[in-house]
Amino acid sequence: MESEALKTRLKIRRGEWGRPTTGLGFEQANLVILPKRYAYDFLLFCQRNPKPCPLIEVGDEGSYEARCAPKSDIRFDVPKYRIYKKGKLAEECEDIEKYWKSDLIFFLLGCSFTFERELIDRGIKLKHLEQGKNVAMYNTNLKCNPAGVFEGEMVVSMRPIKHRDLVKTIEITSKFKKAHGPPVHLGSPAEIGIKALDVPDYGNPIDIDEREIPVFWACGVTPQLIALRKKLDFMITHSPGHMLILG
Amino acid sequence: MESEALKTRLKIRRGEWGRPTTGLGFEQANLVILPKRYAYDFLLFCQRNPKPCPLIEVGDEGSYEARCAPKSDIRFDVPKYRIYKKGKLAEECEDIEKYWKSDLIFFLLGCSFTFERELIDRGIKLKHLEQGKNVAMYNTNLKCNPAGVFEGEMVVSMRPIKHRDLVKTIEITSKFKKAHGPPVHLGSPAEIGIKALDVPDYGNPIDIDEREIPVFWACGVTPQLIALRKKLDFMITHSPGHMLILG
Repeated sequence: MESEALKTRLKIRRGEWGRPTTGLGFEQANLVILPKRYAYDFLLFCQRNPKPCPLIEVGDEGSYEARCAPKSDIRFDVPKYRIYKKGKLAEECEDIEKYWKSDLIFFLLGCSFTFERELIDRGIKLKHLEQGKNVAMYNTNLKCNPAGVFEGEMVVSMRPIKHRDLVKTIEITSKFKKAHGPPVHLGSPAEIGIKALDVPDYGNPIDIDEREIPVFWACGVTPQLIALRKKLDFMITHSPGHMLILG
Repeated sequence: MESEALKTRLKIRRGEWGRPTTGLGFEQANLVILPKRYAYDFLLFCQRNPKPCPLIEVGDEGSYEARCAPKSDIRFDVPKYRIYKKGKLAEECEDIEKYWKSDLIFFLLGCSFTFERELIDRGIKLKHLEQGKNVAMYNTNLKCNPAGVFEGEMVVSMRPIKHRDLVKTIEITSKFKKAHGPPVHLGSPAEIGIKALDVPDYGNPIDIDEREIPVFWACGVTPQLIALRKKLDFMITHSPGHMLILG
């Protein structure tokens, strides 16, 4: 019997998906793939920055099946990938077969899409889902703890939450330590270096009405921003919002 | 003002201590020091085995001050060290100044001594403390998840707990995720490969009376057993029971 998660992964693998994986309700993961020479620094970066980079699994060198996603093939099972070369986004593509090498190592980091299902089940509305959008993500001025070549600022995801739901939202997401945990900031976007809420750096803009406040969670896109800034030779990631489905 | 933790560390540094650090009530850590060439595999081993190896901190290459122990010097601040060379215990010593090199990296792993204070405060008697002994530790047949050169079985610490205190003990220690968390086994030592409870592999034997049951927690001595079995060129650790005091 194929699990629902595996069925969805296979659909993605066959190229029958092509959209963000938000709102699906499965446990989901950010993907980072690096050559062995960067692996120690990145593993240490995750250890020192568990909020943006909550490590779920690290593959053995050259391996492309994740234990936490049985029968997965991380070269094909993400709807959209990004290839970074020498500090530039070189390509977006639907599989990474031609880039695969035996010295690559994959890292899976928890994703905030994982806690969205519980928020919804507990009666908290998520506007980006209601509007059929990807979540809004922003670069910030929140510094990460450096580790080797990896240093830079945190990326955050934002969800507008009604004032009356704030405490419940914090309580619920606090339990999801492996999916970024509690918010890193509430309201006052300027304080964390976000200039224009209506112009996210990744994903779609979401309008905020007067009964709502923007709530920010640490985001697994953080390593992508750092790869760009530090001009890493080579790195593969998922495309923001297009995650690996686990289970 | 020097904190009580720092005062105790300085006492240890001056060589005025010379006994296990059990029963002290501070947060405490297992110490593993490895050359850079083993660091990636060991960091991955910790990520894959959070129960025996709950990572608290990893130093930068060559650094010997721990952030979680301000003004510490990990070359002097542990009461007793063990030097492992080519799979053998080469020496026990009170400082490691002569062994220090700029390619060494220290790893601090949580220690079960950290949860002992809360057990005592909640009315649970710990016999090894009452008898002025080190805790009893044993090699087992519980396999760790391998990572590179690091593979082998888990070491556990054992505390006799009264039947009426078992549930409370499990509840309390479950909260200490960074100090090995809940027990890995209760009773029936033979099931986890322990032949003689009265002959521990490390620490002191503790007798168990009929109202008690032996309770086993994953132990940070695990990397030492693995270093021996895998014949690592070089590794420095604390001596079992002689921990780094944090805070």
